[in-house]
Amino acid sequence: MQLPIIIALIVLMVITIQSNDQIGLVAKISGLLANDEYNILSMHEHVDKTENLFFMRLEVNKLSAGSSLEQKLSELLPAGALINVNPDAVKKVIVLVTKEYHCLADILVRNYFKTLGASVQCVIGNYTNLEDICKRFDVPFYHVPFEGPHPESEQRLLNIINKYEHDYIVLAKFMRILSPDFVGRFPRKIINIHHSFLPAFAGANPYKQAYERGVKLVGATAHFVTDELDEGPIIAQQIISADHSLTAGDMMKAGKEIETAVLAKALKVVFDDRVFICKNKTVVLE
Amino acid sequence: MQLPIIIALIVLMVITIQSNDQIGLVAKISGLLANDEYNILSMHEHVDKTENLFFMRLEVNKLSAGSSLEQKLSELLPAGALINVNPDAVKKVIVLVTKEYHCLADILVRNYFKTLGASVQCVIGNYTNLEDICKRFDVPFYHVPFEGPHPESEQRLLNIINKYEHDYIVLAKFMRILSPDFVGRFPRKIINIHHSFLPAFAGANPYKQAYERGVKLVGATAHFVTDELDEGPIIAQQIISADHSLTAGDMMKAGKEIETAVLAKALKVVFDDRVFICKNKTVVLE
Amino acid sequence: MQLPIIIALIVLMVITIQSNDQIGLVAKISGLLANDEYNILSMHEHVDKTENLFFMRLEVNKLSAGSSLEQKLSELLPAGALINVNPDAVKKVIVLVTKEYHCLADILVRNYFKTLGASVQCVIGNYTNLEDICKRFDVPFYHVPFEGPHPESEQRLLNIINKYEHDYIVLAKFMRILSPDFVGRFPRKIINIHHSFLPAFAGANPYKQAYERGVKLVGATAHFVTDELDEGPIIAQQIISADHSLTAGDMMKAGKEIETAVLAKALKVVFDDRVFICKNKTVVLE
Amino acid sequence: MQLPIIIALIVLMVITIQSNDQIGLVAKISGLLANDEYNILSMHEHVDKTENLFFMRLEVNKLSAGSSLEQKLSELLPAGALINVNPDAVKKVIVLVTKEYHCLADILVRNYFKTLGASVQCVIGNYTNLEDICKRFDVPFYHVPFEGPHPESEQRLLNIINKYEHDYIVLAKFMRILSPDFVGRFPRKIINIHHSFLPAFAGANPYKQAYERGVKLVGATAHFVTDELDEGPIIAQQIISADHSLTAGDMMKAGKEIETAVLAKALKVVFDDRVFICKNKTVVLE
Repeated sequence: MQLPIIIALIVLMVITIQSNDQIGLVAKISGLLANDEYNILSMHEHVDKTENLFFMRLEVNKLSAGSSLEQKLSELLPAGALINVNPDAVKKVIVLVTKEYHCLADILVRNYFKTLGASVQCVIGNYTNLEDICKRFDVPFYHVPFEGPHPESEQRLLNIINKYEHDYIVLAKFMRILSPDFVGRFPRKIINIHHSFLPAFAGANPYKQAYERGVKLVGATAHFVTDELDEGPIIAQQIISADHSLTAGDMMKAGKEIETAVLAKALKVVFDDRVFICKNKTVVLE
Repeated sequence: MQLPIIIALIVLMVITIQSNDQIGLVAKISGLLANDEYNILSMHEHVDKTENLFFMRLEVNKLSAGSSLEQKLSELLPAGALINVNPDAVKKVIVLVTKEYHCLADILVRNYFKTLGASVQCVIGNYTNLEDICKRFDVPFYHVPFEGPHPESEQRLLNIINKYEHDYIVLAKFMRILSPDFVGRFPRKIINIHHSFLPAFAGANPYKQAYERGVKLVGATAHFVTDELDEGPIIAQQIISADHSLTAGDMMKAGKEIETAVLAKALKVVFDDRVFICKNKTVVLE
Repeated sequence: MQLPIIIALIVLMVITIQSNDQIGLVAKISGLLANDEYNILSMHEHVDKTENLFFMRLEVNKLSAGSSLEQKLSELLPAGALINVNPDAVKKVIVLVTKEYHCLADILVRNYFKTLGASVQCVIGNYTNLEDICKRFDVPFYHVPFEGPHPESEQRLLNIINKYEHDYIVLAKFMRILSPDFVGRFPRKIINIHHSFLPAFAGANPYKQAYERGVKLVGATAHFVTDELDEGPIIAQQIISADHSLTAGDMMKAGKEIETAVLAKALKVVFDDRVFICKNKTVVLE
Repeated sequence: MQLPIIIALIVLMVITIQSNDQIGLVAKISGLLANDEYNILSMHEHVDKTENLFFMRLEVNKLSAGSSLEQKLSELLPAGALINVNPDAVKKVIVLVTKEYHCLADILVRNYFKTLGASVQCVIGNYTNLEDICKRFDVPFYHVPFEGPHPESEQRLLNIINKYEHDYIVLAKFMRILSPDFVGRFPRKIINIHHSFLPAFAGANPYKQAYERGVKLVGATAHFVTDELDEGPIIAQQIISADHSLTAGDMMKAGKEIETAVLAKALKVVFDDRVFICKNKTVVLE
């Protein structure tokens, strides 16, 4: 016997919800989805009892999705709920760098092999040494000299950024400070990799600070950028062992490996719509 | 103004469900709970798509719990669902040991300070050297010489075990093999700590095996015991770094630290009703 | 054939050297030892190029050790060298605690089974709840109410401490601040376990600080105590993962496991004469 | 006062020694170096008591190095000692791949930025999908279809390999088995990354094996290739946590990150002359 051929458009969607908590929310949401014949592939939720907040991430699919799901959910949920119904889409990102290659190269490689979960629109560097690697991967590179948060330098950045659609701006070892005004234009959209286990060693030269303090671990922190230096919501952190035999330079080298890994991890969960921001913290639903 | 004094019995319960999967299960369960005025404190679920199985752990509370929750859930869920509605109770355990103290002492200390999540009923050892530490903690110790899975030795074990109520039997470095017949009497109830990263180095002398293989990591594995040696469902595993400078004896010493930590971790999740067994694997809902 | 019976006193010694660096130091030292028929079992050295300092730890044995080794070494080495030739001896320690049991119990268990590398002389607590566990292990316990670095309270501590020989004082979750005067009496002899990854979250309530900062790792730090709060040389550090699902209380619970492990690790290397202090850092020769 | 300008050629060298152990070896070696006015920058040694073997790695420098150091050392050391006096040179490597890009891309990036410690001579793939990334980095790529250890396929590999100077052959996810004859031509020169924590899950499909066994950790192992499958000396290993929520595919994805890191670590220590092979184990002097 031959099986009939069925041609169907199964639509995969990611739904994220951030809302005040209420008894029965899960029942309401899952009831609505069952009723509308959505198939739940995965569901993660978290309730912050202290803040009385509810977070949920769902992956659902359906034979030809109804367009009114976001609307229906918003009628169901407490006022002010943040609801996002995304087609499982690739994000668009702009990358800022200074001189170090390790995070950028990792992003370019994943971008090239389509495993980044995002598409790199362009790279902006305040030095030129990373231009060649970008060219090799056919990614536009712009050189913007930038020595501090001066309005003109930032305007030059903005001019380039505004040329491209973008969901996120990734500071992949961009070693300059951006002004609160600049940061304020991209709330919850700028992601930075800091080369220490924050809040230890915030600010400049963290490896030198770490070396001088004689720590036995070296870490890295990926976080959203807010207008307070190195104080934004943390997305991911990791450490590796250190000991007395490492010079400040060795610590920096070891740190680069962990910086690359932590930024990759953070970008993965952000691009995958798994990260919620609540006050100065993140909820990461994996 | 004075607040009125309200005396109420708030009952905290842990609900675990293991069932065939079905669209709408979460909606049904959370609907039932909302309807019966249970407050969901935490909910974790997992769906195994390959096996089409649904796992859920809930912590709920209610002003004076209704007794019929288990019944109501079983009417709601697919036939054959395993449902457990527990008062958040302390488990009862019996501990078997040979000569090494590290896992036993950790268990006795937590038992004494009431942070084990279980109550140690007695300890059975096939040597006498651990009797004194048990006495110091007022825990009954029985000496049962035991050199292999002989029916008589196992009968002596059973005679003691049967004197006590018990939810679990913990092999805290019990270095003897138990017969399939013995193990079969306590399905899903015997927990062992194996001194290697299973399935590497199953069987005897794993540290010697690891040393000779020149591994760069030393691990430990806590697992349920089934009738196949070292092949039962794994609950927790951990490793630490090793290098060429370690002798087999050093590896064993380092291993003891990790054995203690892994067994403690496994007991915590088991005693907390977070572990489901599905075929030869565990689902640990944390 | 029967082997002749040889009765010989083989003496095992640990030699530690901290000195200005000089070309040829290793040759000189190992030459002297070879000449005097010491058998080198292990040798670890470190040179701090920045400070031009030389650190070495040797384990040697010999058929009946000559008594003049320390003298000979001091003649050989640069002026001011710190040389220590120890019989491989068990250290003597006094433990200070407040209310938490986890670090103390781990120390008492290892002490009881003679794997601590030290002998616990007594325990001093500013509460009484840990008295019973000390008694169970036949370790003297003293209750000294202590709410801050008051001269009288510290004098009461000193009166007890001075009753006992001691190489080290271990603050096993002693949650009170000691005065610079008190600390100054025991230079390089007081070891503390701090419940965070220093220098992050120094001071009070680190878990609350960590929770509020939304960190993704929780750590612990064992360090020597100097007169600056939480700023002494770090001996060992470790971390475990944390996420949004942990409350401040959960972080504290998870932290206790890691505190216990880190303090145990630090005590092991200190009691084993593996730790050198250089300025505000340690060199740990393993 | 003006400082005179001194133009001098300071030569940096790495010395590795593997020899039978003997009392006084360190004294002899360091004496010789001091005598010849070599400045020891770092020295690491290890003695394997079981095998009575001595391993040492030195970094030394000197104002214009004498050419006879290797000769002098060999006169000093026990017969059969393996002595290597290297100028601190960049190694030459050939990389073999199948379809997966992650390890290759990491190697190409480090090669491009001159941080690999080696120079990639060419890449050979048994598929063509990785040709483009090689071209982007100006590294020659050869396509050699290869389905098993057939003499003709291996001859085609050899023809290419023999065109290039090479110190090492790196199997960067080359998913085919090489014959003992082929492997035997390159003793201690072929480095493989195996996608599991060996010796667990040797052979094919380790992630499927790991998934089915329900492990809670996923690992990777870099090792030298000998004629026994997955049994050669281990250079580096690492793991990451896994849990029930990971499918076999998820485990594979997570595994790729750790494979990349472990291979990078192993190549670093090998290219840096830090790895000694002794029987079926490595000594890694860091």
